[in-house]
Amino acid sequence: MKLYVWGVAPNPRRVKIYLAEKGLSVPIEDAGIPDQAALKPEFLEGGPHRRVPLLVLDDGTQIGEAMAICRYFETLNPEPSLMGTDALERATIEMWERTADNDGMNAVAEFFRNSRKAFIGRGLSGMPGTVEQIPGLVERGKQRLGWWYEKMDRRLADHEFIAGKKYSVADITALCVFDFAKRVGAEAPAGLANLARWHATVSARPSAKA
Amino acid sequence: MKLYVWGVAPNPRRVKIYLAEKGLSVPIEDAGIPDQAALKPEFLEGGPHRRVPLLVLDDGTQIGEAMAICRYFETLNPEPSLMGTDALERATIEMWERTADNDGMNAVAEFFRNSRKAFIGRGLSGMPGTVEQIPGLVERGKQRLGWWYEKMDRRLADHEFIAGKKYSVADITALCVFDFAKRVGAEAPAGLANLARWHATVSARPSAKA
Repeated sequence: MKLYVWGVAPNPRRVKIYLAEKGLSVPIEDAGIPDQAALKPEFLEGGPHRRVPLLVLDDGTQIGEAMAICRYFETLNPEPSLMGTDALERATIEMWERTADNDGMNAVAEFFRNSRKAFIGRGLSGMPGTVEQIPGLVERGKQRLGWWYEKMDRRLADHEFIAGKKYSVADITALCVFDFAKRVGAEAPAGLANLARWHATVSARPSAKA
Repeated sequence: MKLYVWGVAPNPRRVKIYLAEKGLSVPIEDAGIPDQAALKPEFLEGGPHRRVPLLVLDDGTQIGEAMAICRYFETLNPEPSLMGTDALERATIEMWERTADNDGMNAVAEFFRNSRKAFIGRGLSGMPGTVEQIPGLVERGKQRLGWWYEKMDRRLADHEFIAGKKYSVADITALCVFDFAKRVGAEAPAGLANLARWHATVSARPSAKA
């Protein structure tokens, strides 16, 4: 089994934090070309997914998408639960995880991919051909991300973690969005006190070092 | 319990097809303003999610995101499984469902939302403020959707259904993308025989009428 990641990319980090929380160890390989903002051609051409994270099982089966990889490990190792146990808990976690993915991760990706010279012609990840950058997405990505920060802050006003009383994969995805956005210049505005409190709490967990 | 939907919108249809496959019946209400391309203000202001589908439980708890709603019903009604039973099956279904969501649903949304006069100022769904349309996303959405059609066609060359031998939520999301794209003028190109075969198979199921 091997997990392919790529430098500081936020999507592989979702799986790395998840594994750290579960106490699981998986061999990891970086699929990037050293000192270049690109994945190795042999990785891209090795399967349909063309993205990290990618889990390759011993028989060669490939599982892409961070949450699909987490679902694989969650089913084999249900405790401690990070995806919920009863119906309402599972649904609430999935709702907020998908919201972080759609409104947070997609927004910071729009901002980042369309604003960097290193990604000219690669405005979207995982595509098999040229995708021109769209300058209008830089500002729109930031605007969209700003609304997600505010939505998170309101949610966290009366919830310790995003999905409720327990830390879950919704917190993991949100943390990866938050930290990557800060790294690339789209950090959360000052003054969102609930969001800041949550960030300090989840960042203090040893898994956040992943 | 009530499920909020909106006309022919593709995301609520994911849940409607799911419920039909499971033989479950849930009261449904359309959240749209009759004869307008907009959701009712009281719906938008009734919770943080601002999108359909939305499931409201009897105690007022709101669950947004199509797959989170399906996860709720799947946990309460595991048979017949549409989200997988063992680790590999669950992960494979989630991988391809998320791919259909990211590469298919998001792509057709970009094409549609940025090309229609009815959505001027609302280039993204669910946002609490003005989002100007970006003309470049019309063509890019179509290009991205085209790559998803091709990826699906390759996958379906040696798999009866998207995740393998069994019909799953991955087929449901993909069907909703396919049919909505056709309705709005971004249909799959002729010549993708595996995709066409799959579409005929899943469309013949009674649930496809949902």
